[in-house]
Amino acid sequence: MTVSNYRQATASEESLKRIFTIPEDPNSTLSIIEQKLTEDLAGFLGDNIVAKELTLNEIETWFQDHKIPQSPSFVSQYTDEIMQNLVAHSVHTSAPTFIGHMTSSLPYFVLPLTKLMAGLNQNLVKIETSKAFTPLEKQVLGMMHHLVYQQEQDFYQDKMHSAEHSLGAFCSGGTIANITALWTARNILLEADGDFKGVALQGLMAGLRHYGYNDLAILTSERGHYSLGKAADLLGIGRENIIAIETDADNKVDVELMRQKAEELAKQNIRVMAIVGIAGTTETGNIDPLVELAALAKELNCHFHVDAAWGGATLLSTKYRHLLKGIELADSVTIDAHKQMYVPMGAGMVIFKSPTHSQAITHHAEYILRKGSKDLGRQTLEGSRPGMAILVHACLKIIGLSGYEILINNSIEKAKYFAKQIHEHPDFELITEPELCLLTYRYVPQEVQDRLTQAISENDQTKIEDINSLLDGLTQFIQKHQREQGKSFVSRTRIRPQQYQRRHTVVFRTVLANPLTTESILNDILQEQTEIAELDAQFYPQLMSLI
Amino acid sequence: MTVSNYRQATASEESLKRIFTIPEDPNSTLSIIEQKLTEDLAGFLGDNIVAKELTLNEIETWFQDHKIPQSPSFVSQYTDEIMQNLVAHSVHTSAPTFIGHMTSSLPYFVLPLTKLMAGLNQNLVKIETSKAFTPLEKQVLGMMHHLVYQQEQDFYQDKMHSAEHSLGAFCSGGTIANITALWTARNILLEADGDFKGVALQGLMAGLRHYGYNDLAILTSERGHYSLGKAADLLGIGRENIIAIETDADNKVDVELMRQKAEELAKQNIRVMAIVGIAGTTETGNIDPLVELAALAKELNCHFHVDAAWGGATLLSTKYRHLLKGIELADSVTIDAHKQMYVPMGAGMVIFKSPTHSQAITHHAEYILRKGSKDLGRQTLEGSRPGMAILVHACLKIIGLSGYEILINNSIEKAKYFAKQIHEHPDFELITEPELCLLTYRYVPQEVQDRLTQAISENDQTKIEDINSLLDGLTQFIQKHQREQGKSFVSRTRIRPQQYQRRHTVVFRTVLANPLTTESILNDILQEQTEIAELDAQFYPQLMSLI
Repeated sequence: MTVSNYRQATASEESLKRIFTIPEDPNSTLSIIEQKLTEDLAGFLGDNIVAKELTLNEIETWFQDHKIPQSPSFVSQYTDEIMQNLVAHSVHTSAPTFIGHMTSSLPYFVLPLTKLMAGLNQNLVKIETSKAFTPLEKQVLGMMHHLVYQQEQDFYQDKMHSAEHSLGAFCSGGTIANITALWTARNILLEADGDFKGVALQGLMAGLRHYGYNDLAILTSERGHYSLGKAADLLGIGRENIIAIETDADNKVDVELMRQKAEELAKQNIRVMAIVGIAGTTETGNIDPLVELAALAKELNCHFHVDAAWGGATLLSTKYRHLLKGIELADSVTIDAHKQMYVPMGAGMVIFKSPTHSQAITHHAEYILRKGSKDLGRQTLEGSRPGMAILVHACLKIIGLSGYEILINNSIEKAKYFAKQIHEHPDFELITEPELCLLTYRYVPQEVQDRLTQAISENDQTKIEDINSLLDGLTQFIQKHQREQGKSFVSRTRIRPQQYQRRHTVVFRTVLANPLTTESILNDILQEQTEIAELDAQFYPQLMSLI
Repeated sequence: MTVSNYRQATASEESLKRIFTIPEDPNSTLSIIEQKLTEDLAGFLGDNIVAKELTLNEIETWFQDHKIPQSPSFVSQYTDEIMQNLVAHSVHTSAPTFIGHMTSSLPYFVLPLTKLMAGLNQNLVKIETSKAFTPLEKQVLGMMHHLVYQQEQDFYQDKMHSAEHSLGAFCSGGTIANITALWTARNILLEADGDFKGVALQGLMAGLRHYGYNDLAILTSERGHYSLGKAADLLGIGRENIIAIETDADNKVDVELMRQKAEELAKQNIRVMAIVGIAGTTETGNIDPLVELAALAKELNCHFHVDAAWGGATLLSTKYRHLLKGIELADSVTIDAHKQMYVPMGAGMVIFKSPTHSQAITHHAEYILRKGSKDLGRQTLEGSRPGMAILVHACLKIIGLSGYEILINNSIEKAKYFAKQIHEHPDFELITEPELCLLTYRYVPQEVQDRLTQAISENDQTKIEDINSLLDGLTQFIQKHQREQGKSFVSRTRIRPQQYQRRHTVVFRTVLANPLTTESILNDILQEQTEIAELDAQFYPQLMSLI
C-alpha cells in the first residue's frame, strides 16, 4: 500500500491519532494541490474550474448520499472526489472576467494567513481563547472608526482598548452588521425608564406600551439591501415597517419624500426608530444624500445608520471619499472587508460613533464574558468566532492607504471607462451611471433604440411596453447564456429607472472591483454579448420585427 | 534589495498588481511559516506561542495605532511583526493540556482545505457565486438531519435538494443557529391569519394583539446558554421572558417545575412560544430529559428546540447516542461542527425536523435569491457566507462514523477516568459527574473536606459558608495562576450544586474532547494544581487555620 494508506485507511485509534498528529505527506494529492494554490492560484483555478457549466441538477447527483458514511476515506481519495465534483464546478469568483458580483482576485498573502488562522484556531468570543487576537481586533475596529469618524488621538487612546467601551463589532458579514446596528438602535430608543426595565429585558410589547407608541418604523431607500427587511423581521418590528422611499433619477433616496412619510407616521403615532442611508447600493452603487439624511434623523431624534457594506471602502481614497460626505454624522456604519477591501469571505464590521453605544446589547455569562472583562463576545451578536480580523489587519498594513488609494481609484475609473464604452456603443444602453465602480446597462440594438425613442416621443405606451418587455427577455437570455458559456459573467437584476417611468426593467449589473480586470476584457464582454444576442431565437427576432 | 522587495515595497500599480498575481516566494518568511504549519502544526504552535503569558495591557501596547498606515509594508516585515506580537501571544487552543474550553487539536487535512476554501472564495448566499458548494452544503445538512431524525431514503431524495424545502441552515456558530431556530418558532406561532399578515411582515406588537396574548415566553434550564437570552432580546421577546427553570442534582432541568411554570404563565395569558432543551450544557455537560420535554412541548402546543451545539456530536457514537434520546422529537436542533466534530472555528448548523419549517423566514431580493431558486441565502440569517461546509463534509467523509465512534467514546471515557482520579484523590472534590466529556471539580484539601463534612452534619451554616467562600477564592487563585504558568489550562465557572444548597460555587471546568490529551496529562494537571494551591498566600492559609 502507498504512503497515503496510513492516513485514515481504517478507523482505529492509531489511524485517528495520526490524522491529528502526522504532517501532510508532501507527495499526496492534497499537498500537490496546496502547492499549486501557493505557486499560482489563478492558474490553479483556471485549470481546475471547468468553463462550461453543468446544470445544478447534474451536479446534485454527486451529492445524494444522506447517510454519513460508516467507513473512513483516504484523504487522497476524498481530495480526488472534491476536485472532480466540487472544485471543478465551483465558481471562478476571482476571474478578471467575472464582473457580476462583489468578488475579486485576492492578494496572495491572505491565503497563507488564512491557513495560519485556521491552525491557531482562536475563538474571539473571549480572551481566554484568543488573547492577542482581542487587542488586534480592537485595533482594526479603531482604525476603521478613525477612517469613518476621524476623532483625535486622545479618543482612541482612551477608548480603543477600554473594557467599558467598544468602537464596533466584527461579524461574519454586512447582514449581521446591519442587524447589530438596528438592534442597538431599538434598545437605546426603548431603554429602561422608571418602572420599565428596557426592551432588552422586557420585550418589544412592554417597550411600546411603556413609551406609548403604536409601532416602530425604519426609513430607508427603495434600493436598501434585503438584510434590512430581515433585520426588521428578526427584531420584531416587521418587514412592513421598513419603509422604502422612492429614489430620484440618480438612484439616491428622495429626502423630501422621506420627511413627508415621517410626518405621516408621526400622525399615526408610529415612532421612526432609525433612518438607514445607503453608501453604495447593491444594485446601482449609488450613495444617498447622507448629510441631508443626518439632518432629518436629527429632526426626528432617531438613530442614523449608514449601510456602507460595499461602498465604505471608498473612504480609503482621498480622491473619492468626498462622495460619502456625511457618513461621519452616522451613529453606526456597516463596512464589509470582504468586498472592496480584498479580504476573503466572512469579514463584516459595524462601527459605532459613540463608544458607549453598544452597551445597549451587552450581555454576560458566568463561565466567560464576566463583567469588566474585555471579552469581545460581550458585545457581539455572534458567539464563537474565528480570528478573521487578522486578514483585515494584514490588508490594511500591507496595502496601506496609498495602496488602497490606487485600487479604489482604478476601480471607479474603470467603471467610468466601461460606462463610456457602453454609451458610445450603438447597440448598448447605459441604464445607471457609475458613481462608484458599479453600473447597469442592457443590450438594445441601435434600430430598437431608435424605435423606442420614437415611441417615447409619441407617448405610445403600448409600443414602449412591448419593446421593453422583449428587451427584458433578451437581457435574461444573454445573461444566462453568457454565464453558461463560462467565459465571462455579469449579473442581472431588475430596477425601476426613471427614464422608463419607473417600470421594472431587467438590466445587466457589473461590479468592477477586480484589479485584474482590464479595459480589453470589458470590450470583449460587449462583443460577446452582442454575439449571444443574435443567437436568441425568441426575443431578438421579435424585437427586430417590431422596428 | 531582496526578493521580497517587489512584494509591496511601494504603492504603485505595478507593485499592487504583483500582490494579486505573483506567487508566494518560497524563501519568504511567510512561506517558511506555512511550510512549518504543514510539516508540524503542533510543533509550530508549541515553538511559537510563548508559554509564560504577558498581561493584556502589555500586549495592547503593540496594537495602539488608530490610523491605517499611509505607506504599505513588506509582507515579510508584517509577518515578522505578527509572529512576535500576535502569534506568540495567542492561545494554544489545540494543546492537549488546554482542557478548559471546547477546543481541540484538528485533523491535519482541514488546514489545506481551509486554504483551498479561501482560494476559491465562494459566497454561499447564492448559486451564482457558489455553484457546486450549494448541493454540497445541502448534502451536509441532509446528513446531519439523518443523524438526528433518521428519516427514510425517500424523504431525503425528495427534500434534500428541493428548492421548496430546507433541512436546516449553516451559520457561523451555535448562537446564530439558536437565534434562527427561535426566529422560525416565533414566526410560525404568530403566522398570518385572517387580516393579520404575520409577525414577519407586521411585527410583534401586531402579532400579540391579533392573537390576544399578553406576551411570549421561552422555557429552558437554568443551565441554558447565554445565546438564548441574546435571542430573546433580539427577537423582541425580552430576556426576562426566557424563563430559567431549576435543575435537579444531575443538572438536568426539572420538567415538573417547568410544567408548573407553564401553568402560571397560561394564567397570565403569556404564551409559551418554545421549550429549549439542552443536550450538553456548557457548564456541566449534562443532557436534559428530552423525551419529557418533548411531551410537555406537545401539551403546550409549542416549538421544541434542542441546543446540542456541544453535545450533538454524541449522536455519532452508537454507544452513547442513547444519552440524547428524545432529540429526534425536537422541531429544531443546533449542532456546532467546530466543537466535537473537529472542524475549525465558524461552522454552526441548525437542523429542522420539518423541511417546510424554515419557510417562516424565507426572504427574497431582486438581484439574487429569486423565488423558486435554490439560493441558500433565502433561508439563512446571515447573507454572504464562506464555504465552511466543505470542512464538515471532509470530516464526515474522511473520519466516517466508525472514526467518530472512537473519538467520541474515548472523550467520554477519558472524562470518566479523570472523574475517578479526582474522586479518589484525597485533595480534590468532584462537583459534577461527567455525563459527556465535561466535568467540574475543585481543590479541597482532605482536612478541609473533613471539616466541611462535619459542618454540614452539624448544619453549621456559618462554617459552611466560611469554608466555601475561602474555597471559591482558592479555586480562582489556582485557575488564574495555572493559566499564567502556561503549562496547562482549565477554565472556571460558577454553578449552584445541590450538595451545597444551590450556593453559587466556583469550580474548575474541563472539556476532554482533544484526542491527544492523555491520562498522564490529566494526572499532571492535578499535581500542578496541588502545587499551585500551596503557593496561595491568602485563601490557603486561612482555610488551613479554619480546621
